Amino acid sequence: MNLILLHPSDLDQQGYARISDPRRLAHLRDIHRATPGSRLTVGVQDGSMGKAQLIELTREQAVFALDSLTDVAPPALPVHLVLALPRPRMLARTLEHVTALGVKEITLLHTKRVEKSYWQSPELLPEKIQQHLILGLEQARDTQLPNVILSKGFRPFIEEQLPDLLREHRGLVAHPGMPMACPRGISEKILLLVGPEGGFIPWEVEKLLEVGCEGMHLGPRILRVETAVTALLARLF
Amino acid sequence: MNLILLHPSDLDQQGYARISDPRRLAHLRDIHRATPGSRLTVGVQDGSMGKAQLIELTREQAVFALDSLTDVAPPALPVHLVLALPRPRMLARTLEHVTALGVKEITLLHTKRVEKSYWQSPELLPEKIQQHLILGLEQARDTQLPNVILSKGFRPFIEEQLPDLLREHRGLVAHPGMPMACPRGISEKILLLVGPEGGFIPWEVEKLLEVGCEGMHLGPRILRVETAVTALLARLF
Repeated sequence: MNLILLHPSDLDQQGYARISDPRRLAHLRDIHRATPGSRLTVGVQDGSMGKAQLIELTREQAVFALDSLTDVAPPALPVHLVLALPRPRMLARTLEHVTALGVKEITLLHTKRVEKSYWQSPELLPEKIQQHLILGLEQARDTQLPNVILSKGFRPFIEEQLPDLLREHRGLVAHPGMPMACPRGISEKILLLVGPEGGFIPWEVEKLLEVGCEGMHLGPRILRVETAVTALLARLF
Repeated sequence: MNLILLHPSDLDQQGYARISDPRRLAHLRDIHRATPGSRLTVGVQDGSMGKAQLIELTREQAVFALDSLTDVAPPALPVHLVLALPRPRMLARTLEHVTALGVKEITLLHTKRVEKSYWQSPELLPEKIQQHLILGLEQARDTQLPNVILSKGFRPFIEEQLPDLLREHRGLVAHPGMPMACPRGISEKILLLVGPEGGFIPWEVEKLLEVGCEGMHLGPRILRVETAVTALLARLF
């Protein structure tokens, strides 16, 4: 937690913030070893960042006096990530990685090789997803919460959403064996599509290319989804 | 496990391989759902790769008939990774990520902000380290086991080992706030130094630069070690 992320409802009108949830209190105590007087980096969700002084820390609450918060959040990556839904534990870690890296638009997509049971996982509850996004923001010192969309049908996504997305983004499908290597250091808006463990099936790749996406590879190694997504984002931007 | 990694002692002279450890047997059964007749990708540790046919699978052992194994392992990254020892769980995952990405030389280094207790972790036992390296190789379809060195003193490393390493490598220290951005797509041999959570202390950075390393940054975001290392490797090579 390199940033104490405050919800707007944590703030009062007098420039104080109060938090009372056990997770942030434990972190302040055990990791930051904060005591009254400690100055810490804080940010307001979807707002600005700056310093605050801890003025009270009890088992029940922490109270901060905020400086004027004038720092802006670091820039977002110009990418919309479309990720075949990974298994729940991998999803949790991947959401934290990509949020820390600055992704703001995430679509979780059903594809042939996604196990249907993954869509029933409690990790997909909005409050669970939000927890992982917040961990990513706290890690990277960012305040802008990503937007996560669940897209449970491959064909409706391809037919109804993808054409619109491709009007504003260059579509890149990461898939082993494609002739083009993943481009480096680009600044265009990218729609980045990443398949599940085992990859997209050939029919899915064909459909994606038909609609106007470009295929690309990341070398001969087979990477876990969380490794591949981080590597793709680091190489693209 | 995209590759069944065989130890040379698993092989006999007649072109058969036998494995009997519960981990690989369970994986064959539950993940691959392999049955006699299944053809699977295999590789011999530090050797070549190819296909094998499963001819027997019981609770006690699996027996394979090997094709002539003529595929070579994918190329290694031209990097020696010097990583401040992360906390044990992060170490485990980071070893798997970097092995999958093709790192073959890894030094785990003590620095000021590494908690001393981490050096007592059972995760540092050679057999535990090897387990994570093997998981990384099996994931990426590689056979070449990385070499892991433990370097428990920062000053001896700087004074006794670093000068020799820098004769053959370009030294790059990842550190926030350095003026140079992490280079992209290079082919030189790199010595990549990555600090602990919280970073190198200023004195350590100064020493590393004095000996001839270059500082570089990866942008304004603070990343977890495992995310940062993957991002650095993907961007450098």
